[in-house]
Amino acid sequence: MGSIEEVRPGDELVISADPNHPANLIPRLCKQFYTLGWVTGTGGGASIKQGDHVYIAPSGVQKELMEPENIFVMSWPTPKYPPSERVYIRKPLDLKPSACTPLFLSAFEQGAGCCIHTHSQWAVLVTLLVEQKFSKDACFEISTIEQIKGIPAGKGKGMLGYHDKLKIPIIENTPFEEDLTGSLEKAMQQYPDTYAVLVRRHGIYVWGDTWIKAKTQCESLDYLFQLAVEMHKLGLPWLP
Amino acid sequence: MGSIEEVRPGDELVISADPNHPANLIPRLCKQFYTLGWVTGTGGGASIKQGDHVYIAPSGVQKELMEPENIFVMSWPTPKYPPSERVYIRKPLDLKPSACTPLFLSAFEQGAGCCIHTHSQWAVLVTLLVEQKFSKDACFEISTIEQIKGIPAGKGKGMLGYHDKLKIPIIENTPFEEDLTGSLEKAMQQYPDTYAVLVRRHGIYVWGDTWIKAKTQCESLDYLFQLAVEMHKLGLPWLP
Amino acid sequence: MGSIEEVRPGDELVISADPNHPANLIPRLCKQFYTLGWVTGTGGGASIKQGDHVYIAPSGVQKELMEPENIFVMSWPTPKYPPSERVYIRKPLDLKPSACTPLFLSAFEQGAGCCIHTHSQWAVLVTLLVEQKFSKDACFEISTIEQIKGIPAGKGKGMLGYHDKLKIPIIENTPFEEDLTGSLEKAMQQYPDTYAVLVRRHGIYVWGDTWIKAKTQCESLDYLFQLAVEMHKLGLPWLP
Amino acid sequence: MGSIEEVRPGDELVISADPNHPANLIPRLCKQFYTLGWVTGTGGGASIKQGDHVYIAPSGVQKELMEPENIFVMSWPTPKYPPSERVYIRKPLDLKPSACTPLFLSAFEQGAGCCIHTHSQWAVLVTLLVEQKFSKDACFEISTIEQIKGIPAGKGKGMLGYHDKLKIPIIENTPFEEDLTGSLEKAMQQYPDTYAVLVRRHGIYVWGDTWIKAKTQCESLDYLFQLAVEMHKLGLPWLP
Repeated sequence: MGSIEEVRPGDELVISADPNHPANLIPRLCKQFYTLGWVTGTGGGASIKQGDHVYIAPSGVQKELMEPENIFVMSWPTPKYPPSERVYIRKPLDLKPSACTPLFLSAFEQGAGCCIHTHSQWAVLVTLLVEQKFSKDACFEISTIEQIKGIPAGKGKGMLGYHDKLKIPIIENTPFEEDLTGSLEKAMQQYPDTYAVLVRRHGIYVWGDTWIKAKTQCESLDYLFQLAVEMHKLGLPWLP
Repeated sequence: MGSIEEVRPGDELVISADPNHPANLIPRLCKQFYTLGWVTGTGGGASIKQGDHVYIAPSGVQKELMEPENIFVMSWPTPKYPPSERVYIRKPLDLKPSACTPLFLSAFEQGAGCCIHTHSQWAVLVTLLVEQKFSKDACFEISTIEQIKGIPAGKGKGMLGYHDKLKIPIIENTPFEEDLTGSLEKAMQQYPDTYAVLVRRHGIYVWGDTWIKAKTQCESLDYLFQLAVEMHKLGLPWLP
Repeated sequence: MGSIEEVRPGDELVISADPNHPANLIPRLCKQFYTLGWVTGTGGGASIKQGDHVYIAPSGVQKELMEPENIFVMSWPTPKYPPSERVYIRKPLDLKPSACTPLFLSAFEQGAGCCIHTHSQWAVLVTLLVEQKFSKDACFEISTIEQIKGIPAGKGKGMLGYHDKLKIPIIENTPFEEDLTGSLEKAMQQYPDTYAVLVRRHGIYVWGDTWIKAKTQCESLDYLFQLAVEMHKLGLPWLP
Repeated sequence: MGSIEEVRPGDELVISADPNHPANLIPRLCKQFYTLGWVTGTGGGASIKQGDHVYIAPSGVQKELMEPENIFVMSWPTPKYPPSERVYIRKPLDLKPSACTPLFLSAFEQGAGCCIHTHSQWAVLVTLLVEQKFSKDACFEISTIEQIKGIPAGKGKGMLGYHDKLKIPIIENTPFEEDLTGSLEKAMQQYPDTYAVLVRRHGIYVWGDTWIKAKTQCESLDYLFQLAVEMHKLGLPWLP
């Protein structure tokens, strides 16, 4: 990932009448994520890459009250530019960029078009239960639940089947969010088919080819995590 | 069930100023089902039969953002036509028909006017608890809970009484949703009074004479499933 | 309670521009109760007495979609009329009166201005836990929880104090809702200070001097029932 | 804290077109807190200090229906006035001031700009679990959960780090809310870095430099309390 430099242009990059413009979409998604309990207390975030622009929710803002003007925009140069050319081409003066930014960029380098980060309690509990039940190195694994079919099997491999095993790697948390980048990228290499990485005691990063896929995959995963916690309470195993 | 063929007419079948037109109702219902956690991650669906038309929610769409233009319409010929005449008379070009379609049609052949499919976690957990407590062949059974009175006793038999036993059959899930049709229809034959069939590790199909009955019956069942899971956690039996 | 006869006047009794007119209030409250999970699947109901009129939610209607035109109105004659004069002075032609009506009237005879009936799962679970922990004759009792101060100590006795014991009688359910009237009235006589009666395996009736008091007392009770269920799961006793 | 006297001026103190005026903010926040389950049954409250005015939610009002006209305003004299000059400069005639007022003022004396009081069940359960697991004198303590970073380490000390221990003191409840003032202030002195005090069997007081910080800190704490209760149920310790 290249160095991040500052420039300060006008607001035209985030003002659009199109409700599906990324600068309109991110606040709308974050409002919805707030009601789902994913981004309480300014936690979590979201980013969308469109063409040669990356749109990023700011740090420390109440996610349900975010406005298009709060969105950071970074250039995502086409191949002719070296990666080092990535710069903020729009920064709200009164806000700080998200500490998740390098993690979002890692997802985009994998080809994603959108990346979502939640602090969902179901995700956090699942990371703790995996450690308690198995070991620190274990992935979260579940199988033969219909909702698994909402998760892709890997790039160009279609969706997981009902009998397939969903496997989400878990990385250890670090004091500073940006320090997760190394282990996130390592997990991406080790599990090239995954569209999500759990972060122990922290939450999850989920990405997808489009914002719709990232969001619906994040919903399906959260559904599975919640179900897995309830199954555990009821003595029901995650794998047949 | 007859073969399904394609035709492509105009949009007049799904554009109506009447808020209770099926093409307006299905999106409104799906939005409500989303907030209830029944159709997260594009899961689940709904279909309404009105006169000689069947209106069906599409596959793979965010259920809380569905629009009337997304609705598929299939002909449901009156008796003079043979069943083989069932064809799509309206297909959104950019969407796929729901894999639940043959299951919805099975419900309509039973005389239903609306069929709802949810991935409710309470439904899924109940199917697992029944297997854990009893056996793979057992039905979900509960009795002497007031909300049971929200479920019909069978066609033309009025509603269940407080002391009656509610009995919902459970079928095994299959890798492809359409392959559930056979066992769904078998369960309908074996339990001719039922207005719902649970699908293990998947969810539930609920139908009713009208969309109002299908919806309120689905709500009553979901209430009972949630209560049953909580009762199980607290050591309270489902039958007296 | 007097006999209930039919008459059919115009709609002027339920059409009002005042948002706090009972015919506007009841639908608004029921919509809110629906989101709280109290009246799912057409269960539950509410009634308000104002002057010499009693306004009652109809039977079998989706509570979140109720309209002022759906409201039944019954006369509540001032003392000069004998009680036998109570008649419906407005009946929606297409709806059935609520089976809760005689129970609402019992509350009004106690001096209440509003009565709410919910199928809250927390209420149902509490009735089952009381039976499991103590006996069929036991009341639900809880003490030293701040929210208890939201419940009146009895007519003209102010609110319960933090160290007071909240005591809600539980009556057994009956196959027909109207048959609860006798045991509800008996519980009212036996526990003259109570503003609520739990119905085993069914839900709760809560009343208050005004709709605001009935609603906020119902909220406080539901809060306490939910807390009590969670405390039970965690091995925490309801009384010190 | 000084004596509280009465005066009755016009409404200009609470009527503003600015959506972020405290008299508009408090009702909006309370409506949001209602949906979070924090202020059910008129419980809980909120207060904002701006310049030399303190704006306070009234007692006994349905929190989701509060209006700017319901807000009390108290003077908060600048240093040249002695504290004894604190008086209500606006009182709604039909409402009673909140019993939380002296506790809100204690927070403002610590330099806070906003104080929130909730009856969150997660907060109540945590106070009971701490007593059950440890002792009456123990604080709630949790560590190595990402959301901890949403809580300040103390005045001018930045936010807590991931490996820091969050420590929230718990005071015993009293029959009258205003009688909590002494022990709240004692806890503030004993734990000068805390921005919140739990009240056993009652709820929590959370404050912050601004309404945004108070609200997001309250959300982060509530998230941690809920997670802690779930962790306890699953046999997962709060400290590594």
